[in-house]
Amino acid sequence: METTASILDKVNSPEDVKKLSLSEMNELAKEIRHYIVKKVNATGGHLAPNLGMVEATIALHYVFNSPDDKLVFDVSHQCYPHKFLTGRKEGFTDPDKYYTYSGYTAPEESEHDWFKIGHTATSVSLAAGLAKARDLKGGKENVVAIIGDGSLSGGEAYEGLNNAAVLNSNIIVVVNDNDMSIAENQGGLYSNLKLLKETKGKAECNFFKALGFDYCYIEEGHDIEKLIALFNKVKDANHPVLVHMHTIKGKGLDVAEHNKEHYHWIIPGELNPDFKFEASGEDYGTITRNYLEKKAEKDDSLIVISPATPGVSGFTPEFREKLGKQYTDVGIAEEHAVAFASGLAKRGAKPVLAMMSSFVQRTYDQISQDLALNSNPATLLIFWGGISGADATHLTTFDIPLISNIPNMVYLAPTCKEEYLRMLDWSVEQTKYPVAIRVPASAAFVSGKDDDTDYSVLNKYKLEEKGSKVAIIGLGTFFELGKKVKAVLSDKLGINATLINPKFITGLDEEMLEGLKQEHDIVITLEDGELDGGFGEKITRFYGTSGMKVLNYGSKKEFTDRVPLETLYERYHLTPDLIAEDIKACL
Amino acid sequence: METTASILDKVNSPEDVKKLSLSEMNELAKEIRHYIVKKVNATGGHLAPNLGMVEATIALHYVFNSPDDKLVFDVSHQCYPHKFLTGRKEGFTDPDKYYTYSGYTAPEESEHDWFKIGHTATSVSLAAGLAKARDLKGGKENVVAIIGDGSLSGGEAYEGLNNAAVLNSNIIVVVNDNDMSIAENQGGLYSNLKLLKETKGKAECNFFKALGFDYCYIEEGHDIEKLIALFNKVKDANHPVLVHMHTIKGKGLDVAEHNKEHYHWIIPGELNPDFKFEASGEDYGTITRNYLEKKAEKDDSLIVISPATPGVSGFTPEFREKLGKQYTDVGIAEEHAVAFASGLAKRGAKPVLAMMSSFVQRTYDQISQDLALNSNPATLLIFWGGISGADATHLTTFDIPLISNIPNMVYLAPTCKEEYLRMLDWSVEQTKYPVAIRVPASAAFVSGKDDDTDYSVLNKYKLEEKGSKVAIIGLGTFFELGKKVKAVLSDKLGINATLINPKFITGLDEEMLEGLKQEHDIVITLEDGELDGGFGEKITRFYGTSGMKVLNYGSKKEFTDRVPLETLYERYHLTPDLIAEDIKACL
Repeated sequence: METTASILDKVNSPEDVKKLSLSEMNELAKEIRHYIVKKVNATGGHLAPNLGMVEATIALHYVFNSPDDKLVFDVSHQCYPHKFLTGRKEGFTDPDKYYTYSGYTAPEESEHDWFKIGHTATSVSLAAGLAKARDLKGGKENVVAIIGDGSLSGGEAYEGLNNAAVLNSNIIVVVNDNDMSIAENQGGLYSNLKLLKETKGKAECNFFKALGFDYCYIEEGHDIEKLIALFNKVKDANHPVLVHMHTIKGKGLDVAEHNKEHYHWIIPGELNPDFKFEASGEDYGTITRNYLEKKAEKDDSLIVISPATPGVSGFTPEFREKLGKQYTDVGIAEEHAVAFASGLAKRGAKPVLAMMSSFVQRTYDQISQDLALNSNPATLLIFWGGISGADATHLTTFDIPLISNIPNMVYLAPTCKEEYLRMLDWSVEQTKYPVAIRVPASAAFVSGKDDDTDYSVLNKYKLEEKGSKVAIIGLGTFFELGKKVKAVLSDKLGINATLINPKFITGLDEEMLEGLKQEHDIVITLEDGELDGGFGEKITRFYGTSGMKVLNYGSKKEFTDRVPLETLYERYHLTPDLIAEDIKACL
Repeated sequence: METTASILDKVNSPEDVKKLSLSEMNELAKEIRHYIVKKVNATGGHLAPNLGMVEATIALHYVFNSPDDKLVFDVSHQCYPHKFLTGRKEGFTDPDKYYTYSGYTAPEESEHDWFKIGHTATSVSLAAGLAKARDLKGGKENVVAIIGDGSLSGGEAYEGLNNAAVLNSNIIVVVNDNDMSIAENQGGLYSNLKLLKETKGKAECNFFKALGFDYCYIEEGHDIEKLIALFNKVKDANHPVLVHMHTIKGKGLDVAEHNKEHYHWIIPGELNPDFKFEASGEDYGTITRNYLEKKAEKDDSLIVISPATPGVSGFTPEFREKLGKQYTDVGIAEEHAVAFASGLAKRGAKPVLAMMSSFVQRTYDQISQDLALNSNPATLLIFWGGISGADATHLTTFDIPLISNIPNMVYLAPTCKEEYLRMLDWSVEQTKYPVAIRVPASAAFVSGKDDDTDYSVLNKYKLEEKGSKVAIIGLGTFFELGKKVKAVLSDKLGINATLINPKFITGLDEEMLEGLKQEHDIVITLEDGELDGGFGEKITRFYGTSGMKVLNYGSKKEFTDRVPLETLYERYHLTPDLIAEDIKACL
């Protein structure tokens, strides 16, 4: 382990921060930056957001008395400095402990963390709850929410602000304004934020004052002395206060300051001079981008939409520029995105909205009411659905239960590049159904065979290989697993299983399922997601009164937090050998 | 049929409105009000919102050219005047046609209606989609969203406004400001709306200007001449415009103007002088209110929350006043409500949040991330879940698939008053789980037997009556149906079925289910909601590899629109006789 510099050595808790002089705190800021850069370059992680929050976090812990005073970080991806100061610095200074702590706030790690947070725009509402409970119970502590300007595009943040403003007691909202979301900010609000920054907070027309906050502005969001002075001023306020703080995303690292979007999140080694991105095979983001670019050229009515997450779907800056008015980033506003897509489709445009599986969780009512109930033909691309070793806040196993139980939705799961492109093109061109397509996170499997399926004939599964005794229905990314299971059944049990690629998540091929009753005793379903409310259960229900045995494979109903994928596959019996054993026990 | 007055006779489309003189339009307004009051008193429906929108709707259709110009009504409960003017007046003037048209906008009825809408805060996003598509396709029409001030508390509306403001082309948002949600407005925004009204729109600090809109104000929202002048001014604007319009909810009917909350929606006959509310038996709203009132007196940390729908859960004005700071209405902001509840629970308060099943659809991500992932012990009361003859926009069949597939949630379904109170008290006092309770819409069934269940022992079903051959698992409101099925099986097939009350929606009593394999050939599940993703499928999956036959009963995955309950029960085989026939066919 590298020799630590002298100030950080003395800091093991917020109490230690309070003992520092101003110049020691400035030195501490340098040291924290040094270790953030080193650690994130080693492991990957959120870089620029954390570099932008170093001074503010030091000042917050200097002034406020956590954990009595409560700090709630929106999204919480910018909480690395906070972790340094609350007993978890070794997670950044000791390479052996680089993976000890999560990249988000975590109550199980520290009493200074109040919630597991990973989705955007929740901090003000959560903080309002802490504050109101404090009032009910006669407490006196400060409650502080720290939220980035990018998060202010989210409806939940607005609802939180609207309610926090009338709490009639202490709540302090610190808006960390660095002019950025992951990419550029989108929406009318940002003109007002710009005006407020330009006028040093003095403009009369003030979004936050309009909502009823007592408002103050600080231009120098990296000046610890000035931050401390301002936080001291608002501390113990008996009414809602909003501190509008200007910072620079990526502050202190030149490349990050000048490439804010790119350095929001980096992968291991990216900061090394000799770093080269290695293409691991064409991914679905690239495939999607290439398809949409060509389509947009030919068809003026195609429009591509992202809720501030273009990186998820491969929408590079070059692609976005090329599409011009045929590309729209709506900000972190997934609900609007879905209703917007419905309106676009109604008026004859061809909307393609790409969202990450975890974030589509925001949109159930909009998919159901705004889109599906109206049967408007929009295309939703749901990226990265599947079981993974992700943080608990970014799991991608819930999109099938979420979407597939909504009437009128057609949810498709491709197994290879050719199927994906066929489904995508069908969806974009047809005008009858609201369609969602589950786009895998992995490098695209290329089958080498064209797909000439007519997807307007709904719910027709594809019989890939005809066998008997056991039928394997492998959905989407788990079709390959299905093939491996078939191989093992053949090798170990001498069974020539039937192999089916269902493609349609939202409907049963009743004819085929009925037909399987001939010559099959067992049907197994494989889905890369939560079993409860998922695909396989519907098939099991179909066979409910028959003698057919059905085994469903997928993930359990649980939140897993950075559990390695191999461990999860063992736990869920998602390996060919474990599945073969289960089948054997059934025969 | 009553003799219609003279102006309405001549109006069968918006073109006819354009031919009227000002005094004729004023007369038309009177006639429309007359018929609205008469019709709504006969059938029930939204009264005050529609009385408040008469003049504005006439003016809109006078100035704009629907359906080329497109009008989108938020929630759309205030669209009755619009229906009068777009070929559907007989739905209000002819008692034989009182039930012909829906109470919301409906594309299948008229080309002047763009979307089926029933949930709040969606109009601006939908309109933004229409506008953007118009631009992509080179169109020139006006796109107008009409949204009430109550709806402005919703996050989706904010996301819509934030994006509409930067459309850089024609979109007109008319804010119908009548100072009311269903009940009083809640939130900081409303101080700003008040300021804007007081200063006739001139105050510098202006929420809408802060978002980037070109803003104008009209005080006299019932003055057709002035409305026409203003709409003409903004018509064909090439940039986003916001018209802030002051109206009076219930305008033109004295009782409605003076009791705005009560007359938001009325039941048949309420306006008759001799009307008396008939208690049909104690409902669950009353039971809930009585419990919470007593609890709040004894426990300062209890807090009751409603997202602007106190009427759904029996929270009368007297109750709300009595609870004082232990009652919070967060406005139409369900997402905030759930996160707020999580924060409250974390800080040791006892939050009870009551939401209607249809509106809980807004909160999937918040229930999952803000609440369940954090395992904070809040109580969610989900009212009115069940199959019904409701409008398609207000169906209440989706809450079980929505909530029960979220890890860590405990979702309970009581069958009677005693169970409900036992579950409610357990949930409020315990500190381990986030709990939801499914509260029926009907008059409460009183079993007469105390419930002494310890609900902290999760997933223990109650064996009500031991039998053999057939096991009936009747969830919540369908437990009574289960009893009737048992009776029919006994009478007609000589079968003494086992009857089980599961209580827990979110987990299996594996011991009991395993035990049923003895002496039972068939298990049937009965749930008052959508089968796909629901309760019964999980039980079917449990028996997947056994020889047990399982029949699941509930509703199909479909949107139904005012289909009579009896018709739905026949369709879904939700009658004792049809179920008995199905069982017989299985034996």
